[in-house]
Amino acid sequence: MNKIATAEILCVGTELLLGDIVNTNAAFLSQRLADLGICVYRHTAVGDNPKRLEAALKCALDSADLVITSGGLGPTYDDLTKETVAACFGLPLEEHAQSLERIKSYFSRTGRTMTENNKKQAMMPRTAHVFDNNYGTAPALAIYDEKKDKTVIMLPGPPNELIPLFNEEVTPYLKKRTDCILVSKNIHFFGIGESALEEKIKSIMTESQNPTVAPYCKEGEVRLRVTAKAQNESQAVKMCDAMIEKIVGHEVGEFIYGIDVDSLEHALVNALHEHSLSICTAESCTGGLIAERITAVAGCSDVFFGGCVTYTNEIKQRLLGVSAETLDTYGAVSAETAMEMARGAREKLGTDIAVSATGIAGPSGGTPETPVGTVFIGVSTQNGESFRKLSLSSMRSRDYIRTVSATNAFDIALKAVSRLTKN
Amino acid sequence: MNKIATAEILCVGTELLLGDIVNTNAAFLSQRLADLGICVYRHTAVGDNPKRLEAALKCALDSADLVITSGGLGPTYDDLTKETVAACFGLPLEEHAQSLERIKSYFSRTGRTMTENNKKQAMMPRTAHVFDNNYGTAPALAIYDEKKDKTVIMLPGPPNELIPLFNEEVTPYLKKRTDCILVSKNIHFFGIGESALEEKIKSIMTESQNPTVAPYCKEGEVRLRVTAKAQNESQAVKMCDAMIEKIVGHEVGEFIYGIDVDSLEHALVNALHEHSLSICTAESCTGGLIAERITAVAGCSDVFFGGCVTYTNEIKQRLLGVSAETLDTYGAVSAETAMEMARGAREKLGTDIAVSATGIAGPSGGTPETPVGTVFIGVSTQNGESFRKLSLSSMRSRDYIRTVSATNAFDIALKAVSRLTKN
Repeated sequence: MNKIATAEILCVGTELLLGDIVNTNAAFLSQRLADLGICVYRHTAVGDNPKRLEAALKCALDSADLVITSGGLGPTYDDLTKETVAACFGLPLEEHAQSLERIKSYFSRTGRTMTENNKKQAMMPRTAHVFDNNYGTAPALAIYDEKKDKTVIMLPGPPNELIPLFNEEVTPYLKKRTDCILVSKNIHFFGIGESALEEKIKSIMTESQNPTVAPYCKEGEVRLRVTAKAQNESQAVKMCDAMIEKIVGHEVGEFIYGIDVDSLEHALVNALHEHSLSICTAESCTGGLIAERITAVAGCSDVFFGGCVTYTNEIKQRLLGVSAETLDTYGAVSAETAMEMARGAREKLGTDIAVSATGIAGPSGGTPETPVGTVFIGVSTQNGESFRKLSLSSMRSRDYIRTVSATNAFDIALKAVSRLTKN
Repeated sequence: MNKIATAEILCVGTELLLGDIVNTNAAFLSQRLADLGICVYRHTAVGDNPKRLEAALKCALDSADLVITSGGLGPTYDDLTKETVAACFGLPLEEHAQSLERIKSYFSRTGRTMTENNKKQAMMPRTAHVFDNNYGTAPALAIYDEKKDKTVIMLPGPPNELIPLFNEEVTPYLKKRTDCILVSKNIHFFGIGESALEEKIKSIMTESQNPTVAPYCKEGEVRLRVTAKAQNESQAVKMCDAMIEKIVGHEVGEFIYGIDVDSLEHALVNALHEHSLSICTAESCTGGLIAERITAVAGCSDVFFGGCVTYTNEIKQRLLGVSAETLDTYGAVSAETAMEMARGAREKLGTDIAVSATGIAGPSGGTPETPVGTVFIGVSTQNGESFRKLSLSSMRSRDYIRTVSATNAFDIALKAVSRLTKN
């Protein structure tokens, strides 16, 4: 058997083409194959249609060493993946005694009645390597064609079967058939756009072949993924770390908030933990999103005490003690209000840090002076208050404006942590 | 131009093949194309590699009338979708004055500096139909080749651009090019599971061919999608409405919270508006999610005043006036605390209704008496307090437990609205 270097993923199921389900299997399999150093060239999804499945399979086998299919292994008449793959390799289907036993015992264990069509699931292509599936009745199997040097692995579609099967059965099978390892690490940036970042480190990105450096952006953030290919893990890690050191030392390094962290709020919760500091929130336009994202981080309860969502002027006064004068003079969407909200929350909840957000998330509510997308982020510590003004495009969605506002609140809070701990 | 009957979806981006992001665009586009009566044959995802993109494009054009691409339209050197498609159709790229203006004004509006590589985004294939993209700098365009009778529509990859662009620009473009109409309406259920619902209305679902009736479930909710195919819209609408009337009149009708509403929180905000009632929130384990989801509904500010996130016992007492005795006697995760939280919030914020949530979202913090997944939802009105106890599986994720808790809070609040308005 030759080593497997490249793969394609072929997902079978009309429900995918109707958009009834999102193809999370393709993403899962891709991640795992990348970890194994196998390069994925293409994802394809086709319906429960043997002709189009056959065409897609042949097309995938043309370019890749390995094709992994998901779906189409159920007991019903339109489940045809196994039959189609077997025909493609000229292999007859034969009853597989062990599989029949397994299916029978599965039914007796779960107290259900085995139907005649479940027996179809125990028919296997001759020479197939059959994986144990303890998670359902569908088979999981591999076919290796020595002459063509091609491998097809067939897995059931439901993620609650596919994921454990891949981890427990397929990974050991594939590990014997790969000859290098890939390691990826992520550098997380905030405060610099994708194009600006790329312009500044273009030479690093284009010159570096191994490790590779590739940018990904999501609402207001950029991530650089550093991926090294090597004979063993420690060598690959070393190569990644050297590249990360280079980028951290570059002028763009000031925008890095973490290496391999899940998000800015995770970085914030980690920093608060590390320095035994506490935080609370005071929110208007973000409506609870800042608190929600902090509390989505498991284990936040040591550092997050609570927060107030103050959607009206009256509630800003009542819960946070914002003065009527400030609201009258500067308006609810102002630096002054943002800072008073943060101060009020910090005093009321007794935390080291408080962050606040007040602005116009839209789609209505904007004025010429304060258009939709204007948001003030406030922060309060024992050393006083400060703010950041965001002027996001008024064409952005309410969701985007709220999300980016919350992300800015985490950034401003993270900087407050580092100021407090430097003093 | 001939009518479009079949389509393929071609997503471009190495991040898809690495499994860094899940391909939600393919599912979204498939749903929308189904609504337009266009049959989707295949999804393909390839990396930022012009050769493989070209091969996939040619393969898709072989079988379908329409190919929709997503991704690869950014400003960077590896964004090559437009260039590859144009080459495939033999069309030169030319500067598109209107697009250049649009991009310039986008940058000036958002106060950012336009870099040289953003100009690349204003280069368009000759004869292209350019869609307005008010959501970002990437172009969105269609190419129609009369001789081959093939159409390619190119959309940017980020869902926050692709989704509104498709709905606002591409849908009207495609509607002119299909010859029947599909109309779908959704019936939203809460409080009944998918299998229970299916069992009760199985005969309706299997007997009905046009309109079709199909169930979809998401965290704690079920939706029935009724889809009718007809020559014109009014006929299709009439067919849907007749089916909806039948299901509303069925015994499962009591679990329906709305027809074609975006979510339970939308239904709640609508009901509050309709009856001029106000609401506030008091949250522990949901950490702001209830407030966040209410305030995600544009126009909620007339009915939502604010809320408190009280993550510690001390803050529950300080902000909401929960008594130390209640916390000592029953614990923070109890019906009594949930109801006191709701009452405290309602009194403090002066609303007609208050909802609360306190529970164990996990993954840690559970005890044998109060395992992970135990959540109390409280509600307070002028007529007093009540609660609902959830016992979600401790195997569920923190995210799932919080989401289902918030959804239950909306359901309990909606029922409070109807009780208040019946009296």
